[in-house]
Amino acid sequence: MKVGIVGATGYGGVELYRILSNHPYVEECILYSSSEMDVPYIHSFPHLTDLSSHILNNIDVDEIKNNVKVLFLATPPGVSRTLSPQFIGSDVKIIDLSGDLRLKNKSEYEKWYKRECVAEDVLEKAVYGLSELNKADITKADLLANPGCFPTATILGLAPVVREKRIHEQSIIVDAKTGVSGAGRNASQATHFSEVNENVKIYKVHEHQHVPEIEQALHALNDAVSYISFSTHLIPMTRGIMSTIYASLTDTYTTEKLLDLYKEFYADSPFVRIRKQNEFPSTKEVYGSNFCDIGIKIDERTNRVTIVSVIDNLMKGAAGQAVQNFNLMNGFDETTGLFHAPIYP
Amino acid sequence: MKVGIVGATGYGGVELYRILSNHPYVEECILYSSSEMDVPYIHSFPHLTDLSSHILNNIDVDEIKNNVKVLFLATPPGVSRTLSPQFIGSDVKIIDLSGDLRLKNKSEYEKWYKRECVAEDVLEKAVYGLSELNKADITKADLLANPGCFPTATILGLAPVVREKRIHEQSIIVDAKTGVSGAGRNASQATHFSEVNENVKIYKVHEHQHVPEIEQALHALNDAVSYISFSTHLIPMTRGIMSTIYASLTDTYTTEKLLDLYKEFYADSPFVRIRKQNEFPSTKEVYGSNFCDIGIKIDERTNRVTIVSVIDNLMKGAAGQAVQNFNLMNGFDETTGLFHAPIYP
Amino acid sequence: MKVGIVGATGYGGVELYRILSNHPYVEECILYSSSEMDVPYIHSFPHLTDLSSHILNNIDVDEIKNNVKVLFLATPPGVSRTLSPQFIGSDVKIIDLSGDLRLKNKSEYEKWYKRECVAEDVLEKAVYGLSELNKADITKADLLANPGCFPTATILGLAPVVREKRIHEQSIIVDAKTGVSGAGRNASQATHFSEVNENVKIYKVHEHQHVPEIEQALHALNDAVSYISFSTHLIPMTRGIMSTIYASLTDTYTTEKLLDLYKEFYADSPFVRIRKQNEFPSTKEVYGSNFCDIGIKIDERTNRVTIVSVIDNLMKGAAGQAVQNFNLMNGFDETTGLFHAPIYP
Amino acid sequence: MKVGIVGATGYGGVELYRILSNHPYVEECILYSSSEMDVPYIHSFPHLTDLSSHILNNIDVDEIKNNVKVLFLATPPGVSRTLSPQFIGSDVKIIDLSGDLRLKNKSEYEKWYKRECVAEDVLEKAVYGLSELNKADITKADLLANPGCFPTATILGLAPVVREKRIHEQSIIVDAKTGVSGAGRNASQATHFSEVNENVKIYKVHEHQHVPEIEQALHALNDAVSYISFSTHLIPMTRGIMSTIYASLTDTYTTEKLLDLYKEFYADSPFVRIRKQNEFPSTKEVYGSNFCDIGIKIDERTNRVTIVSVIDNLMKGAAGQAVQNFNLMNGFDETTGLFHAPIYP
Repeated sequence: MKVGIVGATGYGGVELYRILSNHPYVEECILYSSSEMDVPYIHSFPHLTDLSSHILNNIDVDEIKNNVKVLFLATPPGVSRTLSPQFIGSDVKIIDLSGDLRLKNKSEYEKWYKRECVAEDVLEKAVYGLSELNKADITKADLLANPGCFPTATILGLAPVVREKRIHEQSIIVDAKTGVSGAGRNASQATHFSEVNENVKIYKVHEHQHVPEIEQALHALNDAVSYISFSTHLIPMTRGIMSTIYASLTDTYTTEKLLDLYKEFYADSPFVRIRKQNEFPSTKEVYGSNFCDIGIKIDERTNRVTIVSVIDNLMKGAAGQAVQNFNLMNGFDETTGLFHAPIYP
Repeated sequence: MKVGIVGATGYGGVELYRILSNHPYVEECILYSSSEMDVPYIHSFPHLTDLSSHILNNIDVDEIKNNVKVLFLATPPGVSRTLSPQFIGSDVKIIDLSGDLRLKNKSEYEKWYKRECVAEDVLEKAVYGLSELNKADITKADLLANPGCFPTATILGLAPVVREKRIHEQSIIVDAKTGVSGAGRNASQATHFSEVNENVKIYKVHEHQHVPEIEQALHALNDAVSYISFSTHLIPMTRGIMSTIYASLTDTYTTEKLLDLYKEFYADSPFVRIRKQNEFPSTKEVYGSNFCDIGIKIDERTNRVTIVSVIDNLMKGAAGQAVQNFNLMNGFDETTGLFHAPIYP
Repeated sequence: MKVGIVGATGYGGVELYRILSNHPYVEECILYSSSEMDVPYIHSFPHLTDLSSHILNNIDVDEIKNNVKVLFLATPPGVSRTLSPQFIGSDVKIIDLSGDLRLKNKSEYEKWYKRECVAEDVLEKAVYGLSELNKADITKADLLANPGCFPTATILGLAPVVREKRIHEQSIIVDAKTGVSGAGRNASQATHFSEVNENVKIYKVHEHQHVPEIEQALHALNDAVSYISFSTHLIPMTRGIMSTIYASLTDTYTTEKLLDLYKEFYADSPFVRIRKQNEFPSTKEVYGSNFCDIGIKIDERTNRVTIVSVIDNLMKGAAGQAVQNFNLMNGFDETTGLFHAPIYP
Repeated sequence: MKVGIVGATGYGGVELYRILSNHPYVEECILYSSSEMDVPYIHSFPHLTDLSSHILNNIDVDEIKNNVKVLFLATPPGVSRTLSPQFIGSDVKIIDLSGDLRLKNKSEYEKWYKRECVAEDVLEKAVYGLSELNKADITKADLLANPGCFPTATILGLAPVVREKRIHEQSIIVDAKTGVSGAGRNASQATHFSEVNENVKIYKVHEHQHVPEIEQALHALNDAVSYISFSTHLIPMTRGIMSTIYASLTDTYTTEKLLDLYKEFYADSPFVRIRKQNEFPSTKEVYGSNFCDIGIKIDERTNRVTIVSVIDNLMKGAAGQAVQNFNLMNGFDETTGLFHAPIYP
């Protein structure tokens, strides 16, 4: 099968390339870029010397329709809005890693993203691709909205207790920490080494565009969920996201029983690993892999639970989950080409 | 004035030395260590080459009583318990940077620290040294319990809204992030570079010994406070603590009005800097200084407030605040020898 | 094929495990440790949760002889000296990642390693496993001395110009930089995060035990080589080695011609990548992979050449090359299970 | 005394501000910027909240002449070329931190900097400000060319053995490592956290503009010096430079004797610290300070010496040395406002 990657010069794009170029069912990756063309890919990424003879191609919709079966969009916000609709009705399945197709409510998109949304009929066709929660729909999808990095870690961390009503729906507070690669490859003062190193910084306080995405997904599991508190912190590392989640319990439970609930909930989810009692995952323990690791513990003093959910933001938080969805959409085992151990240390 | 530092070979000790050796009212620092003696201090800290000809001395209580006016204890838990009582009634004022004297409730100490507590009559004499909140008592103290790093950032971040009952007392959730130097200079796998670098790790979940210290101080401001949720994360940097604090508001307020409250509350506190609306401090912005910077913002959707409080854990979180208290205890201006700008970047 | 790993709880051991557990010709990895036994491997490495049900076994020579075909020793210096000889004459092939078997001259070992050397008849049997330079002997080896991390980067960087006498043999100066994981997993003040972060440190000046290993290998290529200058610097990163090499040219050459020489020299070496003119590799460009990337440039002003050679110290500098040698020793293609792209960023 | 800083929004500028705003003889710092004007300085640097009420001013030569006695130029290359000449003959002394005035040979400047040079008569007036080597001229200077960061570390490391002919002049090889802050505050892909973190990169191989500056200064000490080999590596830290220097000895010496030579050479230089035998400085040991620390050791096997010289690139490598020269130019003790201990860790 031939697949295409639009936005191949970004971090999400090159991570897709790393996975797909070793995927047993992918015959070829064709690379597209709006910023460069007819240039060897290794000019952008010399770490692929001797491994890639690919050239960056201009984005030509007709050519893509003739050549690829699945097109990955690893593009900044706004690109998918104009590009995706052109493939509706064609034979090309779209997997969009941007946020353009994730929110079902058009005005929510415009409020949080501060840009124009795609047409509603396109939104209706888009399937939200949190692989573990939406497998049936993903299997049949032609247009897939791949989840954001923070939503992936956060929703997976919360899904069992939200659906099973173990926590008060209005008590959810998420404190997220992320590495810098989530901000993409373009240089800015916010990602300047000398500003990020030896520093922690909170950003987009109460305004992060991933808030409505998380709320929408939790609401789908339990319609009593409305608003959550959510914050994001930039920390001095390249990869990794940790969501530390706090919520009030609806009754008296034990950590052991909650862990059992999580294990059962994710029994058929090979990429979700529930840690044993008194053990919490760190981001390094999923580095370079598609795993989401979860640890939980009840605080009897406050009757709250602390949930820690970690992913590699470029893998399960972007390219890895996109390939997991690609597998599901094409009838492959969902772990195909993805089931690697984390790199440690 | 001659002062002594016990535990001079640790990070807290050497930071005390850095400040005190430039303090205008300190004639000499005498250094004590239980692990080394009769060894030049620069063997432990070659960055002091040409700056220090000090020798590490054995801890001899009588000699100390004869030679120093103020003794700083920058020692691991348990040392102060046996050492401090020996100076009660002497002319030597004690400033203890460890946690041994901070909790007024002996059984709380034994529960959280998992070691024997000092005698209650000693605890009674100890004054809790959060400089901004307890100035009157500190001024008269002979035995001072210098606050912990997390408590300093957290209590300063919460004090105005707790005392003025702007938040529900049972809704406080604190997500703290710290650099590695807080763990001290002794090597352990938890502080091994290859384990900490490119990683975030939660630790001591619901069991951190700073929890009762924070609760005790908040309770003193508002006796409706009982239990808080508090977690600590190790992030890949050397210095700095950020406490991100979430709490539910008791009424409808504006961020602007809350900022006014903070500015008024800290009007006489030169080391607390309240950031302007829509600006949050990062830890690097207090690096190497004694400042505590605070940013706040209300989330109208959830009617919660997010408070961010940052310090340099070795300065305002340890040695800096100890010298601030030293100044207060001796009638000096509290900023003496301490009012330096942060180092940036 | 069943293989064994002694020293599985170290960084070299777990990297071997990562590669070998995905190797198509390895049926099972049996893990041995002198420090732990009958303990699940995931206690040491929770990042392997759900991926490993292995138990750490005591080191029992007879049991090993009965169960494994190839035994990897990822052990501190001194262990192989006593362990390896016990397998001579058995069916078990040994791949020793420590330095115990690398030096042919026993007194050199004792001088640089400051410990007793293995018997000379064992040394004679050991084949030095720099895969690219010694392929014929490796193919037939039963006892393999896997090269050190610095020697691998340095020797590969120098081999073409040394063998072809393009540089003055007495002019070689190597300035090496390494990440911290090369120091192993045991905690020490030298690897304490707060000491390493935001720091560069030179160490073992003129005394590094890899000096005689490099000299021995270069001497084998060109017996006019005797002594080199070699230094090592610890820099704040986890993985990666860069050897920056300076040498005086024996005649007037062009960078282009030297690059041609390198390309020809390494034409059959899939893991050595010669960079194009005016391009130099960085360590991140080989992260997590078995590649050695080399860039070179002549300075006409001084008629010296600057050679930059980078590897991932745990891969091509340890476990990766060990598996490459394992492949060669067993008649597999040398890239089997190893030919992955670097992880970037 | 009133002083001015042009380029106050850069890292060099803000470090000057940190020092000068605590300098006992500086009454006021006036800040100038070409990129911003009439904007509070704390907008650029919120870490100065409550510490600075300064406004950024437009660069107006007449106003500057009326208001300041000394003007520091912390500007990118090319600015000083047009700005400095306008102050010749005025009462304003210029301290230029850029490279525009350092090279005495105009065509060398144009070759290495690839831009037009200032007029030769201006170059003639400029005094090269390596404080330790050129004190007499600095004392009388009106136009001072403050040295580059790499030249400062390198020249101080080499001066004693070059002047005293202990090394072969054509054998000098310098391998330099730098933190990222030397590249300035402007964002670029080269300083992007995700590209720099967990990476070492060599750059400007054989083409760094500091090469002729080093050669010019060494030639002034010993006219047999012509060309050196010099390379620069970017490592993942914010501050600090290490020059590791290799050279062949002209005779048989001992490390002890060479150390004596260094101590004598720098006997009147309070900011140069010669380390004792078998001790080498790391960059962290000068962090935030104006010290240059030097360690040396002879390798008897090769009869070469290894010299390690470290500085904080923003202090002794830029702003610190500029203030040291300011002190000398104004008849103050050279340590005034500068003699602080490094911050550790």
